[in-house]
Amino acid sequence: MRRPRRKAEDTRAEILDTAELLFARNGISGCSIAHIAQALGMSPANVFKHFHSKISLADAICDRHIVKMVDRLKAVETEAPAPERLGVVVRQLMNIHLEAMREAPFMFEMILMLAETKIASGRHYEQMLQSLFCDLIRHGVESGVYYCSDPIRRGRAVAAAFACVLHPVFLVNEPPEELQARCDETVELVNIALQNPLAK
Amino acid sequence: MRRPRRKAEDTRAEILDTAELLFARNGISGCSIAHIAQALGMSPANVFKHFHSKISLADAICDRHIVKMVDRLKAVETEAPAPERLGVVVRQLMNIHLEAMREAPFMFEMILMLAETKIASGRHYEQMLQSLFCDLIRHGVESGVYYCSDPIRRGRAVAAAFACVLHPVFLVNEPPEELQARCDETVELVNIALQNPLAK
Repeated sequence: MRRPRRKAEDTRAEILDTAELLFARNGISGCSIAHIAQALGMSPANVFKHFHSKISLADAICDRHIVKMVDRLKAVETEAPAPERLGVVVRQLMNIHLEAMREAPFMFEMILMLAETKIASGRHYEQMLQSLFCDLIRHGVESGVYYCSDPIRRGRAVAAAFACVLHPVFLVNEPPEELQARCDETVELVNIALQNPLAK
Repeated sequence: MRRPRRKAEDTRAEILDTAELLFARNGISGCSIAHIAQALGMSPANVFKHFHSKISLADAICDRHIVKMVDRLKAVETEAPAPERLGVVVRQLMNIHLEAMREAPFMFEMILMLAETKIASGRHYEQMLQSLFCDLIRHGVESGVYYCSDPIRRGRAVAAAFACVLHPVFLVNEPPEELQARCDETVELVNIALQNPLAK
């Protein structure tokens, strides 16, 4: 059976949709490129043209989720003062992760599988967080509630400090009350730092 | 061949030594309780009496490393002011992890394997860090360089914020310069928070 010619981008999206469905159903270790190709009625070679390994497929699926997450965050943009906004943004991000983990537990298998590999989506997520916090710090400095002469450097440190509530490895199997408390305490610590008038 | 009767504690230590050796040689997934028993000249039932699963064995090995780590940290106790000590302690801890990862790469496989399970050694490590930072904050408050009315709560937040340089999942595959920079920037952020005279 010959498939009609289609745009590479559409084919790529179709492969990702099917792979995500199969990963969710059978786990990543229970799927191969060959399975995915079969489900799509494609040749494995055709899938391979777009994704050179199961890792790069999983990486691309993660990246799609990250982009969706940023879009949702932009939608909840608030007009509150910076210290409050920081809390809202971090809690929102943490809850999006928790929801994703409930709805798609295979995502956790994926992240563990990818933890050993240096992957593009991990780096993308990190940079997205750094620029998010950098903007938030700038906004706080402009409105006179935060003190900081190097928002880029500080944004990196803030993103790193929030890994404990924003990296999936720390979210799995933790009781929700404990995560909520850790989130509140870390937001408090970071806000105390950013509000220190003596900070360089 | 009958083995002489020995103290349970000695047997336990011997099992851990052998398991650690075999894990290091063949990876955790390449070992079974039966392999470990065979290498010890014991029956699997005897190993099983001490450890009910490979997970609980791996957990106990991690815990031994944590105890050793704390001992090494106590040995480098410094008389420097609290903000400096904070930097020394965090860098020291990070470097001990990096060293362990180079010397025993199977440890990382173990931690990933255990990340999905709620394990005793993970909780132990977390509590050890929290009490370490709590003591450090108390010391800083007493000497008038830190401001904090609730060192236990703040110690928890500080331990959480340092997960980005103290949890093995963040150390693997990162270039050393980048880790060093992240460590310095996070220590700076936490010190700015702890030195804020307006903090409650």
